[in-house]
Amino acid sequence: MNFRMIFNNIGKILLIEAALLFFPLLVSLIYKETNQYAFLITIGALLCVGVLLCLIRPKTKQIYAREGFILVGLSWIVMSLFGSLPFVISQEIPSFVDALFETISGFTTTGASILTNVEGLSKSMLFWRSFTHWIGGMGVLVFILAILPNSEGQNIYILRAESTGPQVGKLVSKVRFTARILYLIYLGFTLLEVIFLLFGGNSFYESLVTSLATAGTGGFGIYNDSIASFNSYSQIVIGVFMLIFGINFNIFYLILIGRIAQAFKSEELRWYIGIIVFSVVTIAINLTLSMEYAFHIALKDSFFQVSSIITTTGFATADFNLWPNLSKCILLILMFVGACAGSTGGGMKVSRFVILFKSLKREIKKLVHPNSVSNITFEGSTVDENVVKGVNGYFGIMMCIIFASLIVLSFDKLDFETNFTAIVACVNNIGPGFSLVGPMGNYSCFNDFSKIILSALMLIGRLEIYPILLLFMPKVWFNK
Amino acid sequence: MNFRMIFNNIGKILLIEAALLFFPLLVSLIYKETNQYAFLITIGALLCVGVLLCLIRPKTKQIYAREGFILVGLSWIVMSLFGSLPFVISQEIPSFVDALFETISGFTTTGASILTNVEGLSKSMLFWRSFTHWIGGMGVLVFILAILPNSEGQNIYILRAESTGPQVGKLVSKVRFTARILYLIYLGFTLLEVIFLLFGGNSFYESLVTSLATAGTGGFGIYNDSIASFNSYSQIVIGVFMLIFGINFNIFYLILIGRIAQAFKSEELRWYIGIIVFSVVTIAINLTLSMEYAFHIALKDSFFQVSSIITTTGFATADFNLWPNLSKCILLILMFVGACAGSTGGGMKVSRFVILFKSLKREIKKLVHPNSVSNITFEGSTVDENVVKGVNGYFGIMMCIIFASLIVLSFDKLDFETNFTAIVACVNNIGPGFSLVGPMGNYSCFNDFSKIILSALMLIGRLEIYPILLLFMPKVWFNK
Repeated sequence: MNFRMIFNNIGKILLIEAALLFFPLLVSLIYKETNQYAFLITIGALLCVGVLLCLIRPKTKQIYAREGFILVGLSWIVMSLFGSLPFVISQEIPSFVDALFETISGFTTTGASILTNVEGLSKSMLFWRSFTHWIGGMGVLVFILAILPNSEGQNIYILRAESTGPQVGKLVSKVRFTARILYLIYLGFTLLEVIFLLFGGNSFYESLVTSLATAGTGGFGIYNDSIASFNSYSQIVIGVFMLIFGINFNIFYLILIGRIAQAFKSEELRWYIGIIVFSVVTIAINLTLSMEYAFHIALKDSFFQVSSIITTTGFATADFNLWPNLSKCILLILMFVGACAGSTGGGMKVSRFVILFKSLKREIKKLVHPNSVSNITFEGSTVDENVVKGVNGYFGIMMCIIFASLIVLSFDKLDFETNFTAIVACVNNIGPGFSLVGPMGNYSCFNDFSKIILSALMLIGRLEIYPILLLFMPKVWFNK
Repeated sequence: MNFRMIFNNIGKILLIEAALLFFPLLVSLIYKETNQYAFLITIGALLCVGVLLCLIRPKTKQIYAREGFILVGLSWIVMSLFGSLPFVISQEIPSFVDALFETISGFTTTGASILTNVEGLSKSMLFWRSFTHWIGGMGVLVFILAILPNSEGQNIYILRAESTGPQVGKLVSKVRFTARILYLIYLGFTLLEVIFLLFGGNSFYESLVTSLATAGTGGFGIYNDSIASFNSYSQIVIGVFMLIFGINFNIFYLILIGRIAQAFKSEELRWYIGIIVFSVVTIAINLTLSMEYAFHIALKDSFFQVSSIITTTGFATADFNLWPNLSKCILLILMFVGACAGSTGGGMKVSRFVILFKSLKREIKKLVHPNSVSNITFEGSTVDENVVKGVNGYFGIMMCIIFASLIVLSFDKLDFETNFTAIVACVNNIGPGFSLVGPMGNYSCFNDFSKIILSALMLIGRLEIYPILLLFMPKVWFNK
């Protein structure tokens, strides 16, 4: 284990975090709040530790898969530990466990909150809270890819752990160049959303903070009723941008370089759109028939909630916890599906689901024709059998984690629906679940132990299981 | 598709069912009930249709995997359709859908009931109800294996579809001989339980009917409180016998022929015992601490419920729906695990779970050492990769079925816990779930449509998915 290299890189990451904290500090100054000291102390701490860690010079820059995973896992944890300090120091979230939960929820773009009154926070803290979504959304490591002078070999591993989905599309061969392009697309869409929201009559602060949380597919709102008090135009804008940030960024790159036909041939994109259209229409009909909604209102609310859940954002314009069972069930399944691979969204990813679905279909086919040998094709080419195995394994491990968490959370005496959907919403980085953790509820009902477990689940989900799992395997730390 | 062969075999099965119906008829005569006509009419109908179908002579006796699956799937459905007639004709269960649900629940050894007052049924009907467990338990097709003059080749397929678990152990090479041995072990243990229960001061009727339901790991009780009113001695006897019927029958065969050491080397048996001991102790401690149970009472109730759930029997001595979350969670997970392969129990089977667990462990290991190639060993030998794939696929398909059913059941306006655990309890052939379908509740809360879906789930679970799935694939019917 190349510990020196890992420490050195974490040092650099902490310095970046210190720099990022100047933004909420600026917000605090603009609004003449009295909590600047909270940001300044945190920045000071980050600089001290960051510089010290950077002084550890690695003997060799080479790192392997294991080390890549460990680095990714540790960075998220360390960033969250420091990121929670402003909340604690300013006493706006007095409990450290609560602040850590909120910050991990931010960086992992989950959007689950322990706050019973969001509007009680200062503007700068709300900004920092949503800004963690934006930072986390694209993956802290994309910053690092673009900034740290690393060799090709090791970046591939970082990308492998960081980028979402079963296969990393080769956008362009140079990793740092890739990172910059993704970063620009990300920034561009965020700005575009800010502009659209400004046109809707929202203040610059509202537009910016909401766009940051949308871009990261995070879901922290700045009002107690999430997005419900925004006007219809703004709700539709946010709904559309959530969907955009849930699309594989490769698609946008292809469109940018003019290969539009190729972009729209994407099998994953077609499934993504298909699932959304089906869900929106079904839920809208269900709402109209069961709850006496006007159809156009049902369609708008259904569109927003489906968009919010499948992209794992977690914003809400309606209390879908009160919706009929059928609608809730569809939303529950969308929680597992998640967004496209290579997007900022979480969940299992559409592509994993399609491959899983095709591999199950093949297993059934094999029973009818036992000697048939067939390959699974996805995006026009054959899927390697190791990828198929990996997808099956991913799904299996995810289910095991969910069941194990269900046991651990059952020590807290909450109802089954709350526990189950809290786990699903955290591990898939969505935010709200049903019952007590529904869109109009929050996670304050859990005890500290459960909050830590749920925080771990958010990290496990965001980093696609392995980096966090490996952190807890002593073999990885001590073996050659 | 060799339709003639399929019809011919179903004809034979119906004639066997006609013969089996003489037993409840006998009970009805002994207790001088007035419902003999219900059994006589059913026997008459079975004889007519059975003889007619037997007249269809197959041109060739050869059948392939597909046909084996179709035959198995159809036999269970046809047997259930006729088996429900006595309930309807006698008007003891007036609704046909209810009677069918009850009969499918019987033949699939599920034990889920729509009856709000079990004690309202006549003794002969209660006997027939529990007798369907006994018939279903070992698999109707084991009878047929022992009775029908078939060639080796085709029996292997029937066995493949019928016997439970991922791999069929080669007990002895001759299939019919195997069937007879299994049948004798089954009969022997049933009689042994009857004797033990008689010693507990239970009437012969109580002892016999309860033993029939235990042997099939079914779970239909003859009292409204299931087994709670039996004395402690009887409860422990039933608990032990449930565990016995959940063990792979190969083990008993090995013990019978004196290879005791080999029998106890079984990896599946060790996992089975390990899981049971762990669950019983954990739940007993949980009950003692949370519910102020005396520890020895907690241990007895915990043992009975764990034994009942892991073997997928479904008897109850306590209302575990009122137990603390942790205990309920463990029971929920045991519902999925199920009994050993090659037993009369349902669920995923312990061996499938062990193989799944090992394959997930391997996937994680691969991430640390990407180039490592390792085989999975089970019961001392390497597991074929196709079996591993099959197990992963089985698990995946099972999850898909559960989610799809959740959507369909959500049209019924019941709570999430009821719907979810009803599905899990039916597809794993357990019987009781939590909430409304808890051990002191029943399935009468569902509408007819949901009852049919749940009946289908019982069949899907009992026949390990494929035979029922294939019935709905037009390709299978019409392709060469």
